[in-house]
Amino acid sequence: MIELENRILTEGKVLEGNILKVNTFLNHQVDIKLLEAMAEDSFEYFKEDEITKILSIEASGIAIGTIFAQKFDVPLVFAKTRKSRNTDPDSYEVEVKSFTKKTVNNIYVSRKVIDSNDKILIVDDFLAEGNAVYGLLDIIEQAGAEIVGINIAIEKGFQNGGKNLRADGYKLYSQAIIEKFEDGEVVLK
Amino acid sequence: MIELENRILTEGKVLEGNILKVNTFLNHQVDIKLLEAMAEDSFEYFKEDEITKILSIEASGIAIGTIFAQKFDVPLVFAKTRKSRNTDPDSYEVEVKSFTKKTVNNIYVSRKVIDSNDKILIVDDFLAEGNAVYGLLDIIEQAGAEIVGINIAIEKGFQNGGKNLRADGYKLYSQAIIEKFEDGEVVLK
Repeated sequence: MIELENRILTEGKVLEGNILKVNTFLNHQVDIKLLEAMAEDSFEYFKEDEITKILSIEASGIAIGTIFAQKFDVPLVFAKTRKSRNTDPDSYEVEVKSFTKKTVNNIYVSRKVIDSNDKILIVDDFLAEGNAVYGLLDIIEQAGAEIVGINIAIEKGFQNGGKNLRADGYKLYSQAIIEKFEDGEVVLK
Repeated sequence: MIELENRILTEGKVLEGNILKVNTFLNHQVDIKLLEAMAEDSFEYFKEDEITKILSIEASGIAIGTIFAQKFDVPLVFAKTRKSRNTDPDSYEVEVKSFTKKTVNNIYVSRKVIDSNDKILIVDDFLAEGNAVYGLLDIIEQAGAEIVGINIAIEKGFQNGGKNLRADGYKLYSQAIIEKFEDGEVVLK
């Protein structure tokens, strides 16, 4: 998706440990017009799939998920990554590892907000090893809902998440795929 | 703001410890049309203020902030509440207590994404003691930017945040104000 790829190439910063920083336009400061263009692009890909809900995960999936939900004209649900006094005790709960943060956390989705009538599109900012996506897939399966597909803004093509999800037969659409980092620069596929 | 007030009265759940759960429409499942109506309403209030940026805070301020940024046609910035490998080391950093979560956390905003030319509207879902808002105000002041005002979805009018912010002279717009909880029901102001 050309607008996103251009922003990665011009504004993305490569940090040690295969981290790509896109905090001027995607996951700290957020360019809403870019998200709108991404949602338009994704809608072309998934528009026949009768999606009833967008499922994302806090925190950096929420802004993207919000604009996608607007475009698809459905509610957004974002999984919680921290238990607090207002976490629904009657929730689906799955353990997820984070590649960037080197942590293991449980994620939560209330049983009230997805059910077996839903057709769900997962939306997130990054795909590396796929741990967050597999956690969300697990929750959708527990709810008996239908998994329509997965829309990722930026796939790290040199890690295993995308390969595994495609091998498992999921409809995965990545709007930019990084082939590798070379001398501190991004090489897109 | 009548649509939001109606949703609170029909779908909000009062939990022990003065917690109001609005997770079916505002901060877990998110009704985008409601957010659009809230953004329209807020725009009427702040439209003369030449806002250049919306500032919110992860996680539950992000969806609201996204739709507000779209309406005001400016970027969203959301403060980070966790340090990770991709947190900008060159960030404004402030300590904030959470009323709901009973924790103390530092919040971070990169120096790259706000500066002294910005006129900033703070947007968040809840206002209780005002700790998160005061943290964001501190960051805006450190950046030398102008504070236009504060838009809150739901103010707990029986706590001190709103009173203190008004006494300090800030332009605060709360779209629903809870006067009290009585017998497990919400009483709006």
